[in-house]
Amino acid sequence: MSAWLLPDSIADVLPSEARHIEELRRHLLDTACSYGYELVMPPLLEHLDSLLTGTGEALDLQTFKLVDQLSGRSLGLRADTTPQVARIDAHLLGRTGVARLCYCGPVAHTRPDRALGTREPLQLGAELFGHAGAEADLEIMQLALDCLQVAELPPALVDMADVRIVRALMAGLPVEASVLQAVHTALAIKDVASLRELTANFPKAARDGLLALPQLYGDVAVLDEAAKALPDLTAIRQSLDHLRWLAQRLNVGRIGFDLADLRGYAYYSGVRFAAYVEGASDAVVRGGRYDGVGAVFAHDSDRDRPAVGFSLDLKALVRVAAPRALKPAIRAPWGDEPALAEAVAGLRRAGETVIRVLPGHDSEIDEFACDRQLVKVGEHWQVQAVAA
Amino acid sequence: MSAWLLPDSIADVLPSEARHIEELRRHLLDTACSYGYELVMPPLLEHLDSLLTGTGEALDLQTFKLVDQLSGRSLGLRADTTPQVARIDAHLLGRTGVARLCYCGPVAHTRPDRALGTREPLQLGAELFGHAGAEADLEIMQLALDCLQVAELPPALVDMADVRIVRALMAGLPVEASVLQAVHTALAIKDVASLRELTANFPKAARDGLLALPQLYGDVAVLDEAAKALPDLTAIRQSLDHLRWLAQRLNVGRIGFDLADLRGYAYYSGVRFAAYVEGASDAVVRGGRYDGVGAVFAHDSDRDRPAVGFSLDLKALVRVAAPRALKPAIRAPWGDEPALAEAVAGLRRAGETVIRVLPGHDSEIDEFACDRQLVKVGEHWQVQAVAA
Repeated sequence: MSAWLLPDSIADVLPSEARHIEELRRHLLDTACSYGYELVMPPLLEHLDSLLTGTGEALDLQTFKLVDQLSGRSLGLRADTTPQVARIDAHLLGRTGVARLCYCGPVAHTRPDRALGTREPLQLGAELFGHAGAEADLEIMQLALDCLQVAELPPALVDMADVRIVRALMAGLPVEASVLQAVHTALAIKDVASLRELTANFPKAARDGLLALPQLYGDVAVLDEAAKALPDLTAIRQSLDHLRWLAQRLNVGRIGFDLADLRGYAYYSGVRFAAYVEGASDAVVRGGRYDGVGAVFAHDSDRDRPAVGFSLDLKALVRVAAPRALKPAIRAPWGDEPALAEAVAGLRRAGETVIRVLPGHDSEIDEFACDRQLVKVGEHWQVQAVAA
Repeated sequence: MSAWLLPDSIADVLPSEARHIEELRRHLLDTACSYGYELVMPPLLEHLDSLLTGTGEALDLQTFKLVDQLSGRSLGLRADTTPQVARIDAHLLGRTGVARLCYCGPVAHTRPDRALGTREPLQLGAELFGHAGAEADLEIMQLALDCLQVAELPPALVDMADVRIVRALMAGLPVEASVLQAVHTALAIKDVASLRELTANFPKAARDGLLALPQLYGDVAVLDEAAKALPDLTAIRQSLDHLRWLAQRLNVGRIGFDLADLRGYAYYSGVRFAAYVEGASDAVVRGGRYDGVGAVFAHDSDRDRPAVGFSLDLKALVRVAAPRALKPAIRAPWGDEPALAEAVAGLRRAGETVIRVLPGHDSEIDEFACDRQLVKVGEHWQVQAVAA
């Protein structure tokens, strides 16, 4: 086994791609800052029970576990930053009003999400706490879509769903967990035959509603169809109005709805969205409302905070973004002369990349193309074009 | 046990400090780029044997271990990025000439380095591979000191040493590992009595040299004293000339030498340096030459590359840096009007932070002080100063 082989689904990011990721990171964090989102940096490692409280089994399986020598307790290597940011909002900031927070850092997964996926996404995201209204959902969605614009990846499709519809349909039904799970699976794969079997003994309204869901996907017309096909419950009406209100205000080409979509059901409490761009097989941004996740961190129930947010993987984003040209550099000779050192320092301060040619290394290959060089003309050092 | 308690020596970085760290990160990476250092992003997790090969026992004890579910092999959570960058130089880039690489990312330690230290430094560093000359050492030291200047933390003292002096003094002596360790310890704490006992049976030249070392600390005059007090060996002469050559070319206030200092002895192969700034009890930057660390990653012995580099902890740096004022923001009301949305988007594109006041949240507290607001005057939205 060679010492330089990395574990499966883990890779180094090499120069030009790393520089591109760094640029995107800055542009996206600056975009979040322009909306008033404050940057936080939660740690890589936390007590396992802090990392996993209120987040469901899926995150538990994704989380690497290790032991703290100092305390003997189990630590987790974070697989998702959102619960950490919810903890910061609930416990550390203690604000009663709105808190807008953003973050960017690596997370680690025990297994890749899909074939060829990475186990070390570089997660960037933003969360808005303390506001339960549709306005907060809209702000987060606009910020997420602005981030894609800034990355020069205009969203080709924004996909929306709302877990409250299925919750409303099944509310109060005495259903075992295994049946509930089977219903969710059947909805997710739009398996109407199984759904018919599973709901055979359900009350008519719930059954008809659940059986209608697998057909309720497509453009905004789906919301009108849903209003007719689903039972007339307040929660369902509100959810459909909410989706329509958001869709009217999003400045994006194509919006799709899939009312049977239950991804993140255990986690989200309301509207859920995902954005797709040309060239990427999977969504590049995912987000939604997850009220109450931070409640477990709070001292009192007053801190059961509404929350909505999104996250994306910068490593995935950069793979579909157009490559960027690096600014050409200036080559400078090695030498002890103070005037040369001053010329080099001045150019660097002015934002230029100046590469000193170390003795014995006249021609070097790196990511910086040198289109100019520093040469001595009389008593002065001057920048001159390099002959092609 | 409250779910919000973090493990000992692990902490969240909260808004204003996180923003400051992000600014420093950008300035320092841009400084490295201006020298022609290419950015790389090695992973958090690697096979344990890759992470630890050639780095010594200290790093092993500092490294968190976990198990890879995919392969059943042991993984390490990186405690230092330098060996990873050496692996990238030796294996992935395969350049025959000079390679200049830089990086910035979190590392994790099983125990804090000292009381009140963090177990999650945010390590930023630069490495120069493929050049064994003093010119490369000088470039790395200048870049390290420029990074401190850019952070507005001019170095108060640069401390230099060279492991080759002790190596030359002990070369060829048939000394057991335990005695060698005891000699190193005695030198580190300048315990001349123990050193006298330990070296009782050493040849006179080696003994006299080792006994002289604890007195050889101070300013550049130390190098002249050393030339007299130490045996006239080629390696020692070269090392002293090398230190003098570097000191003459470094544009820094105070330079100190401590020829008995053996920190990083197992790792470094030549000049070692550390920079201290006002207000910090420990060095904020450490670096030096570590030729050959990447050799174990190479296919053939040709890739036994010379290497010199430095690293620093951005979290430690920001604690001694002067706090920075955040740019004041603009408050904007919530509203559906397209002209308002355009005004907000335009200001954000122009680099302003515009915070929308969500319905029901008129007064908010966050790190952004709003000194202006967007108000409608006639048909137009205008930015106006907020009355103090």
